[in-house]
Amino acid sequence: MASHVIDLLTLQGNFSTPEMRAIWTDENRLQQQLKVEAALAQAEAKLGLIPEQAAEAIEKASQADLYDIEEIAAESARLKHSMMATINALQAQTGDYGEYVHYGVTTQDVVDTGHMLQVKASYQIIKADLLKAIDHIAQFADDNRDAVMAGRTHGMHALPTTLAFKAVVWLDEFIRHYQRAQEMEGRVFVGNISGGVGTYASFGDLGAQVETETLEILGLGVPNISWQSSRDRFSEYANVLALISASLGKIGNELYNLMRTDIGEIEEGFTDGKVGSSTMPHKRNPAAIEGLVSLTPPIQKAAELIHHSMMTEHERDAMSWRQEWVALPEINIYLAAQLANFNQILPNLLVRKDKMTANLNSQHGLIVSERVMFEVAKALGKQTAHHVVYENAMTSFEQGRDFLEVLSRDGRITQHFDKAALEDLLDPANYTGLADQKVDQVLAYYKEFRKDV
Amino acid sequence: MASHVIDLLTLQGNFSTPEMRAIWTDENRLQQQLKVEAALAQAEAKLGLIPEQAAEAIEKASQADLYDIEEIAAESARLKHSMMATINALQAQTGDYGEYVHYGVTTQDVVDTGHMLQVKASYQIIKADLLKAIDHIAQFADDNRDAVMAGRTHGMHALPTTLAFKAVVWLDEFIRHYQRAQEMEGRVFVGNISGGVGTYASFGDLGAQVETETLEILGLGVPNISWQSSRDRFSEYANVLALISASLGKIGNELYNLMRTDIGEIEEGFTDGKVGSSTMPHKRNPAAIEGLVSLTPPIQKAAELIHHSMMTEHERDAMSWRQEWVALPEINIYLAAQLANFNQILPNLLVRKDKMTANLNSQHGLIVSERVMFEVAKALGKQTAHHVVYENAMTSFEQGRDFLEVLSRDGRITQHFDKAALEDLLDPANYTGLADQKVDQVLAYYKEFRKDV
Amino acid sequence: MASHVIDLLTLQGNFSTPEMRAIWTDENRLQQQLKVEAALAQAEAKLGLIPEQAAEAIEKASQADLYDIEEIAAESARLKHSMMATINALQAQTGDYGEYVHYGVTTQDVVDTGHMLQVKASYQIIKADLLKAIDHIAQFADDNRDAVMAGRTHGMHALPTTLAFKAVVWLDEFIRHYQRAQEMEGRVFVGNISGGVGTYASFGDLGAQVETETLEILGLGVPNISWQSSRDRFSEYANVLALISASLGKIGNELYNLMRTDIGEIEEGFTDGKVGSSTMPHKRNPAAIEGLVSLTPPIQKAAELIHHSMMTEHERDAMSWRQEWVALPEINIYLAAQLANFNQILPNLLVRKDKMTANLNSQHGLIVSERVMFEVAKALGKQTAHHVVYENAMTSFEQGRDFLEVLSRDGRITQHFDKAALEDLLDPANYTGLADQKVDQVLAYYKEFRKDV
Amino acid sequence: MASHVIDLLTLQGNFSTPEMRAIWTDENRLQQQLKVEAALAQAEAKLGLIPEQAAEAIEKASQADLYDIEEIAAESARLKHSMMATINALQAQTGDYGEYVHYGVTTQDVVDTGHMLQVKASYQIIKADLLKAIDHIAQFADDNRDAVMAGRTHGMHALPTTLAFKAVVWLDEFIRHYQRAQEMEGRVFVGNISGGVGTYASFGDLGAQVETETLEILGLGVPNISWQSSRDRFSEYANVLALISASLGKIGNELYNLMRTDIGEIEEGFTDGKVGSSTMPHKRNPAAIEGLVSLTPPIQKAAELIHHSMMTEHERDAMSWRQEWVALPEINIYLAAQLANFNQILPNLLVRKDKMTANLNSQHGLIVSERVMFEVAKALGKQTAHHVVYENAMTSFEQGRDFLEVLSRDGRITQHFDKAALEDLLDPANYTGLADQKVDQVLAYYKEFRKDV
Repeated sequence: MASHVIDLLTLQGNFSTPEMRAIWTDENRLQQQLKVEAALAQAEAKLGLIPEQAAEAIEKASQADLYDIEEIAAESARLKHSMMATINALQAQTGDYGEYVHYGVTTQDVVDTGHMLQVKASYQIIKADLLKAIDHIAQFADDNRDAVMAGRTHGMHALPTTLAFKAVVWLDEFIRHYQRAQEMEGRVFVGNISGGVGTYASFGDLGAQVETETLEILGLGVPNISWQSSRDRFSEYANVLALISASLGKIGNELYNLMRTDIGEIEEGFTDGKVGSSTMPHKRNPAAIEGLVSLTPPIQKAAELIHHSMMTEHERDAMSWRQEWVALPEINIYLAAQLANFNQILPNLLVRKDKMTANLNSQHGLIVSERVMFEVAKALGKQTAHHVVYENAMTSFEQGRDFLEVLSRDGRITQHFDKAALEDLLDPANYTGLADQKVDQVLAYYKEFRKDV
Repeated sequence: MASHVIDLLTLQGNFSTPEMRAIWTDENRLQQQLKVEAALAQAEAKLGLIPEQAAEAIEKASQADLYDIEEIAAESARLKHSMMATINALQAQTGDYGEYVHYGVTTQDVVDTGHMLQVKASYQIIKADLLKAIDHIAQFADDNRDAVMAGRTHGMHALPTTLAFKAVVWLDEFIRHYQRAQEMEGRVFVGNISGGVGTYASFGDLGAQVETETLEILGLGVPNISWQSSRDRFSEYANVLALISASLGKIGNELYNLMRTDIGEIEEGFTDGKVGSSTMPHKRNPAAIEGLVSLTPPIQKAAELIHHSMMTEHERDAMSWRQEWVALPEINIYLAAQLANFNQILPNLLVRKDKMTANLNSQHGLIVSERVMFEVAKALGKQTAHHVVYENAMTSFEQGRDFLEVLSRDGRITQHFDKAALEDLLDPANYTGLADQKVDQVLAYYKEFRKDV
Repeated sequence: MASHVIDLLTLQGNFSTPEMRAIWTDENRLQQQLKVEAALAQAEAKLGLIPEQAAEAIEKASQADLYDIEEIAAESARLKHSMMATINALQAQTGDYGEYVHYGVTTQDVVDTGHMLQVKASYQIIKADLLKAIDHIAQFADDNRDAVMAGRTHGMHALPTTLAFKAVVWLDEFIRHYQRAQEMEGRVFVGNISGGVGTYASFGDLGAQVETETLEILGLGVPNISWQSSRDRFSEYANVLALISASLGKIGNELYNLMRTDIGEIEEGFTDGKVGSSTMPHKRNPAAIEGLVSLTPPIQKAAELIHHSMMTEHERDAMSWRQEWVALPEINIYLAAQLANFNQILPNLLVRKDKMTANLNSQHGLIVSERVMFEVAKALGKQTAHHVVYENAMTSFEQGRDFLEVLSRDGRITQHFDKAALEDLLDPANYTGLADQKVDQVLAYYKEFRKDV
Repeated sequence: MASHVIDLLTLQGNFSTPEMRAIWTDENRLQQQLKVEAALAQAEAKLGLIPEQAAEAIEKASQADLYDIEEIAAESARLKHSMMATINALQAQTGDYGEYVHYGVTTQDVVDTGHMLQVKASYQIIKADLLKAIDHIAQFADDNRDAVMAGRTHGMHALPTTLAFKAVVWLDEFIRHYQRAQEMEGRVFVGNISGGVGTYASFGDLGAQVETETLEILGLGVPNISWQSSRDRFSEYANVLALISASLGKIGNELYNLMRTDIGEIEEGFTDGKVGSSTMPHKRNPAAIEGLVSLTPPIQKAAELIHHSMMTEHERDAMSWRQEWVALPEINIYLAAQLANFNQILPNLLVRKDKMTANLNSQHGLIVSERVMFEVAKALGKQTAHHVVYENAMTSFEQGRDFLEVLSRDGRITQHFDKAALEDLLDPANYTGLADQKVDQVLAYYKEFRKDV
């Protein structure tokens, strides 16, 4: 019976995905550690440190399903050591060659390298889902070029924009995330096999070779030097994930706001049977969107914990180390859920262009006061123009009067613009600037980016 | 030339208040430390540890304006000690009695006790402003009983409520904050005069008496035992402030959302000359409200830092200690600014009841679907009723049709309700539940509370 | 297969306890929600809102073991609603009376009140374990009055203290924590039954009574007004737990440092079979102590998340709400593990008084330089004394010479003190100030405290 | 009179540097904004949007010392706008060409681009000081190859290592930091000139060109699209700084521990006049080292705040924006202080090799129990060897007996090793593994790295 939201049957759907959970189970954690032990044995046999038969026996014994997790857990508790029980079980399984198990390494070598394998496997999922997210955003931008809508700053209508313009702002941001992810790969996915204090003392002269051979078998990079007391790789990884998550949360918040009853410009895909409320039959809530937003703070907290754990003491300590054990699964699992959620939401989003148009016109042209000012400026100069337009805008707002109508009564305006000219000026669709051009440009950039990945 | 937002002339107005800044200046920090030294000397003279004349000389020398802060700062840097320069300056000022300065205490005794005096002075401001906030909320509730508006859950119209109801939810919350503040007072505002490792070793047998006498002069509580390595008092204090700030931020966010162009139910008080945008003449931004919201995260970060600093080593250390020096001023200064801002915003808020009514009716009755369901349930049973009303609500929403009109075409409904009955059912103003009763009840509770403070 | 450290069989021992995990399972979460539904029905029947038989049927159906959690989970996913599937299952189980299930309430009423029952049950464990911790600390202080040891400030030997003195500093701190816990109880453990937006609209005039009756059955307090959008209670609760955790972490860090090979003044209880290292046979690590320290940062992060979730929108939203679902179990579960761990560690700690004495004398008397200074001051005045003793101390330190020997060669000293006097002055055991007196005093205070709880 | 530690004369030395403070003053903030306005005018003149003379007039007026900061601050408060007062002052100063000031841009364009100039200038300092830190670490490693010392895991002596080995672990970590910094440069230091909602609407067709020309003048990169609502660049920057700071804090903590009286293997450079304590003449505290450690948590909090501020609403809002204004100066200023402090500490550190040797031998050979085990294993097999050595190690530890002496009494050992052989085995200096080789390798890697920067 599980107790954390990641594992609760009734809640885990919001906080995790099955494939990412599978990476962080007891079984897979054990499996990756056994894989490290097997690779180590193979490397050591190749280098003549242990017999070939020992490596074969260890390889054969390195299948997690040969072991009883509950027994290992019970024995760990008795020994008060997080890995000794596993080593003992592997030794028992390896028979006569048991003494060559875990030869020359320290617990942290195996646990860290095992964790790195789990992180790298998590990253494959994250990266693939990030790419899907990028594709969905690009598609969404392409689909919504003509969705002219109110741009809002400080919560207030500011100037017209388009939904596609919003989307390519996200697109550019997510492509940056992808580049960040790529840049860290070589630096982060590196194992560590260096013994008690990182000096390879137990391997005689062969330590560096043991490490290199072992990590090559495992498909991990080889460090310049032991990182038992240098945990920046996990923090760098966490940083990239936290940035992605912040962007997802931000978009979720945008969608939540655009879906408000009072705005209604988009709606989360509605499927039959979906229930909004247990008591209010009309409710259609942004349930998935809220789920999307809700994961950013937990991911940020997990990232903060990983940063905190960089404060290792001397050659290593378990005070900081165990914080990684809490936070590394969390950050990967939560972000996988958040990306999966986003990749469901975006392609199924309903866009209500009629509502966008209605909202855009709800202030009767005030939203393009800037345009009016610039046009009036051509006749009156910009300072005067700002003054005149500001006065008219305040009148329109405070008296709830149509901006066109107010402007039409101001002689300073009408001496330069007739009604038709004013109507044209006040049409928001005519004042989206280079929105379309930018959409094209960023989509072209996306296509270039996409060729390479 | 200052560099932090609290001290930048052009920005500090958003982040601080003059009276709170004055508590945390170099001068006042020095003044409070001198006050501690003087009280100590007075206590020690009374107990016969030092001559009466020494106490008098120290008392006379304990005026901050006798000293040159820049000189003390320069000397501190040279000595690499945060208080030695002050002690030396005080000794010099005290002449022949210099050797009785700082007699038997350690730096941390004076710095901590001085800080506690600053915290206590800050608290007087916070507490007074908190009470003002409570009064403003109560007045605001009282003023807005008849402001029926849409209650929103998940960003969607849910059921009608009133602005007064919202306000008394806040009121009850803020009275809890006040109680929390009161409860901590005796526990938190406690000084510390106990020597190098807290054992009073340097005072002979008189240590506990020296501490008691000194702290009584200073108006601080006397601890059971040295708290040089027990920093929970500052964390408890920070907790109370962080709770207040979270509530202020939440209300700010509420106001920000209600002021959106697309909602428009309230507006931040507008003063002539206020400018919303440097380029868009029509903009009237929630500038003060955004300022209100923006301070909660920095306050939470300051509180977190104070919590972090509880991790002292052994009898004390400066690694954790200096984090308090960063965060104690911040949390007090930011919260003072936030409370002052709130106390400006709330009494000057414009409430647009017409917009509330318009929004309430914008979905043509859908907002009271629950009411329809309960009434229909009387005839058809609740499960059937939910089903029937859900169907009609979805039709109304998806086809953008008037809910009344849709219901009027459903025979299952019309066999029990005629049009007049439906119209009555669909009037949101008839379905605010016990909102008014609760407003009265919490305002009465407030009046009781107010009698005692 | 679980994936979070709280649920991993091989790691959960460090991060959780079985009894606390049991409170936060799917089953118990469901059970508490069913309990709320049953109490609601009972209250409503009593008030005549629903038939008596309905209440009985619902009561009978409100046993979690009647339901298949996996089915409910699957149905929840289909409905995209966190509680509707539970309501449907309960309705089905209740047969003809199904329509009276969940009558008039909203999902959040039941989920929040259910969570509060879980929090309150968690608190019973926390409080009992906190009291045990207090008792252990008192016993530890009582046992270690004569353990004179080096007091350390800034990591450096400062003045002598006793282990009992350290312990009563903790004791006083933990009694404060207990008081904080007690003070919050009445304010925090409060339920909420108030309908869609908190106005009781669906209950006619009986809303407040329904709430009162329901919460009385559940043993929870009755709020002045709905707290669906006021989450400060959970934050206040989290604050108290975070303070306790910070103190536990601080003590853990203290013990970790005292157990260093280079200090060796205490040792974590060693049991046969305990293994320190998989490669270094001599290692006896502070495994439990490191576990103790490692939990404070995750608890602080959980508390921060709960604070963050105070930022609810309007009448409520799920973006902030779900953050509580992550953090409330975490903070309770982690702290239970931390307290249990502490309650194991402290009574089994080995105290090495010989090592304390050796360390105390390792600088040959320098640790009591303050004492020498005060005694010399009687003859030479304090300023001169500080100067003379400082010079001798620096000489002793830099030349690695015995402090006694250095002092014995300084005429300014020897004209006032003969060797026997100096030897006596330099005995650290003679300079623990009022440590013993304070130990007695705080232990007496503890006994008083203990009478009342 | 300033109030924040960054600005307090008596404390700022610990928390800031003069050159970094200078970047974040009112004056320089204004200067950078004026610089942006001037560059904008120049670009617009070139493109024919405004007259050449206007650009010249604006350029001439764009010197911060022409303005009275206090007046601008007062006017800002009156207008309730963070930049309008500056624009007005600049317009006034520009005379007839005033209306061409700030032409077509929005406040956020200028403020963000100005901030980016400040960040970039900060980065030049950070980067140069980071490189100095790297050089100091390399030199420190080179100087301490022969400093054999106890490696410590979990606070306990584990295996021998060297101080140089520790240092090259840091060196490799800091070179990674430098690479991270370099990788972000092109992505981060990018300006933004795109108008009210980022669409360049006010510039007609010339918007993209105006932006490109302006940013080229300013030496900033040109974005693909407006980042008014995409704040990831600041978070990425903060991430790199937070990683550097975590490493500095970790090293500081290491040094703090190594300087403990009970370890004494290093000492912070001591200068005459430095005072450790106001009451204990012998104290020589790690004051600078504690300062080094104390800055990591505030920097992490600032970084967290910047991450938090990524949650912008719609096209932009000031709630999140103002959090950057708090945290961007903080993170740069604190890190500059931390780096400067580190660059003072490391080259002046006293290394006490005699104490290292003494500590290494304090357990009489136990620290190389692993080596004994591996040698014994050659005769008895590894499992038996672990068992035998474990027994002897526990006996040695528990009875406080010399490990050599204990081993010499065990027939299982003595049948394979005579006393001379055992003595050789137990010499820690013989068991530092590949420490020297790794030191050479990482120093060579550093030299390669250094060629390119």
